[in-house]
Amino acid sequence: MQFELTKQFLSDVSHAVSEKDSLFIIKNVNELHPADIAEIMDYVNLQEAQYIYQLLDEEQAADVLVEIDEDVRDKFLASLSAKEIAESIENMDSDDATDLIQDLPEKKQEEVLSEIKDESQSSDITDLLNYEEDSAGGIMAKEFVAANINWTVKEALKMLRKQVEDVDNVFTIYVIDNKAKLKGTLSLKKFLYASDKTLIKDLYRPDPIHVDALIPSEEVASIMEKYELVVIPVVNDVGMLIGRITIDDALEVIKEEAEKDYQMASGISEKVESSDNVWVLSRARLPWLLIGLTGGILGAYVIGSFEDEIRKFPIMASFIPLILAMGGNVGVQSSAIIVQSLANNSLEIDSVAKKLIKELMVALVNGVICSLIALVFCFLTDITPLLALTIGVALISVFLYAGLFGTFIPLVLNRYKIDPALATGPFITTTNDVIGLLLYFLIGWAIYFP
Amino acid sequence: MQFELTKQFLSDVSHAVSEKDSLFIIKNVNELHPADIAEIMDYVNLQEAQYIYQLLDEEQAADVLVEIDEDVRDKFLASLSAKEIAESIENMDSDDATDLIQDLPEKKQEEVLSEIKDESQSSDITDLLNYEEDSAGGIMAKEFVAANINWTVKEALKMLRKQVEDVDNVFTIYVIDNKAKLKGTLSLKKFLYASDKTLIKDLYRPDPIHVDALIPSEEVASIMEKYELVVIPVVNDVGMLIGRITIDDALEVIKEEAEKDYQMASGISEKVESSDNVWVLSRARLPWLLIGLTGGILGAYVIGSFEDEIRKFPIMASFIPLILAMGGNVGVQSSAIIVQSLANNSLEIDSVAKKLIKELMVALVNGVICSLIALVFCFLTDITPLLALTIGVALISVFLYAGLFGTFIPLVLNRYKIDPALATGPFITTTNDVIGLLLYFLIGWAIYFP
Repeated sequence: MQFELTKQFLSDVSHAVSEKDSLFIIKNVNELHPADIAEIMDYVNLQEAQYIYQLLDEEQAADVLVEIDEDVRDKFLASLSAKEIAESIENMDSDDATDLIQDLPEKKQEEVLSEIKDESQSSDITDLLNYEEDSAGGIMAKEFVAANINWTVKEALKMLRKQVEDVDNVFTIYVIDNKAKLKGTLSLKKFLYASDKTLIKDLYRPDPIHVDALIPSEEVASIMEKYELVVIPVVNDVGMLIGRITIDDALEVIKEEAEKDYQMASGISEKVESSDNVWVLSRARLPWLLIGLTGGILGAYVIGSFEDEIRKFPIMASFIPLILAMGGNVGVQSSAIIVQSLANNSLEIDSVAKKLIKELMVALVNGVICSLIALVFCFLTDITPLLALTIGVALISVFLYAGLFGTFIPLVLNRYKIDPALATGPFITTTNDVIGLLLYFLIGWAIYFP
Repeated sequence: MQFELTKQFLSDVSHAVSEKDSLFIIKNVNELHPADIAEIMDYVNLQEAQYIYQLLDEEQAADVLVEIDEDVRDKFLASLSAKEIAESIENMDSDDATDLIQDLPEKKQEEVLSEIKDESQSSDITDLLNYEEDSAGGIMAKEFVAANINWTVKEALKMLRKQVEDVDNVFTIYVIDNKAKLKGTLSLKKFLYASDKTLIKDLYRPDPIHVDALIPSEEVASIMEKYELVVIPVVNDVGMLIGRITIDDALEVIKEEAEKDYQMASGISEKVESSDNVWVLSRARLPWLLIGLTGGILGAYVIGSFEDEIRKFPIMASFIPLILAMGGNVGVQSSAIIVQSLANNSLEIDSVAKKLIKELMVALVNGVICSLIALVFCFLTDITPLLALTIGVALISVFLYAGLFGTFIPLVLNRYKIDPALATGPFITTTNDVIGLLLYFLIGWAIYFP
């Protein structure tokens, strides 16, 4: 039943466009869900996309513009006139319209805004443009349904019928006082029970969970997640209801955060997708590679300063990869656990000291186990007891150091309001490489070289 | 306005419990949102949790049990009798009740089920227990609101008022035929417009997006995300409406997937949190460390077999960390991009060959840049041109190899329905370590050693 995009369908669409077969498009594309049409637009070329877009009815066209992938949209919008964009924007929710306008070049933004005929829509957008993109205000919509606390159910119903026209999903009716201050909520369910003369005052639920327009969107998402809300009201600094955020926007924030953390841990510095071009992909990956390169060169210095010892004991070189692999893995593991706990707000109570001690214990347990296995390997080969001792001690030291460093750095970054995910991936592994090598050769210098 | 858990508050609660000050608890804890009470339960000890739980009213107690952290809940449930658990379960939605029962030991499961007095609830649970936990059926709830297609609005309203009692958030009214087959949906909004005599038949929207009970929960989540749904109906194999999935459950699936991918990329093999104990944390981290250890030992063999060359050219050892770091980073980057694209279903159209060629280009671009920088470094120090050439060629080879391997492996795993995230993190880095070393020394053997 659900639409599935196939190569065959895409080639049929291309064929229809080249033949100017508008009937095929109207019958097979326009009837689809906007999210599906948007998916098609991601794959066809610009001319084809334009042809399809012209054939969509107004509301469908607006929904497709909202759903389409941002990269594709930027190119596509550049091919539309300010007037065409403005027409689509009139059919959008204010939050989607604002997102779209934000993506336009500054000059075109003004042109589009001046072309919007629906004045309440253009003033809503101008208003929303004032908020930071990653704040509650930046993701809220101005469309909501509100009833005055002094109305009766009958009066409310009459007024709501008008408001409801504008709002796609009602979810909750907000209750406000004469000064538009948020007083509470009224579930639609209650309307199925209440008699016409009941006062909203006697029906509403006071003190709803709400957010201030200026808090970060991440915080909004975690509040909605914690309290399992599908919609949350947004108030301004004097408590007036000014908008609402729905779960799909919060979900987007959650996904983006998770993807960002994942990409940072994997050493990718911009938000990229495999469909981006070679230059974008290369550029996003280069910064961490350069950090790794620097670490590798520093490592070369560390090892280079023990050149004579290596000439004498070349077998010391053999265990460099082992030391590096262990230090890297332990560091990434510890930092990942901290980063994830911070993201889930599940760390606020324990003290830093307690976390470090726990990590020290984990590092010790795993360090001892891995060292013992390494020692067994040493005894099975012709490695001297002194070298085996060096490797064992070095491994445990690297485990302890990497565990502590991996735990400590994200906590410090978080304390100074820097994204702790920065600490994961190449940064931790690179530092651990250099320090790990230093520890290994110093322990070798103390135990094995004499 | 939102509750924030502080150390002070926790110590006040502990104090109140030790003094048996039930008034303090009733006034300061019971009034909170269940999600907040659950958060408190995560931090207090078992005796304190029991004391607080006894003071909650029935519905509140059930909600807290649903929200509480699973580890804490398992311990807590062990301290409750089957009868007490059954009483709470009667106040839960069927999906939450089923989740809870699934976490109990088998013997207690049966005891609790037999203690449930509400027969429709216990049969719902027995029914839901048949589905795989990670299928649509495993996360759906049996509570929904449905109207018969042949009813009038007035009849529907009368019947719905009864059904609505059972359902926390209505969202959508489903329309079914006489055989309970899903025919469509009816938005609550429409009820605000329709006259009493209108037939549901003339009011409903046919062909709603729905899912089969047996599809994976991940797929449900991505459908809900794509179409921005807050609720989706679930049908059985003959199209009968048997349940619904709400966005909070889909959100949980999305979060868990993202966390699992992130942890796998970071070399953590079980779902752990920083609050878990030292043994759980150590155990979750050990498997990848052992893989790293094996890689390190294999690396030692590779390097060991060039012992004579290292004795002669100890400077070869200095660049081992550089080669390893570059191979590791490139491999992780490429696999992360593929894993994320697969997770977002944004890869289905491009062929494998096209992806590999693109990755080859990216690897070449970054490989050449990094090699050039490394060469500059070589010329600034007293490194011979032959060694510089060896390092440059080795770097580019490692980039190409690691990029291809990092792209290929997750695609292969995905083809065979194995989680591609397995390919990220220590598995890729470990393999790349060994192969990278081999490439480096073989290139040295060809260029530098003679």
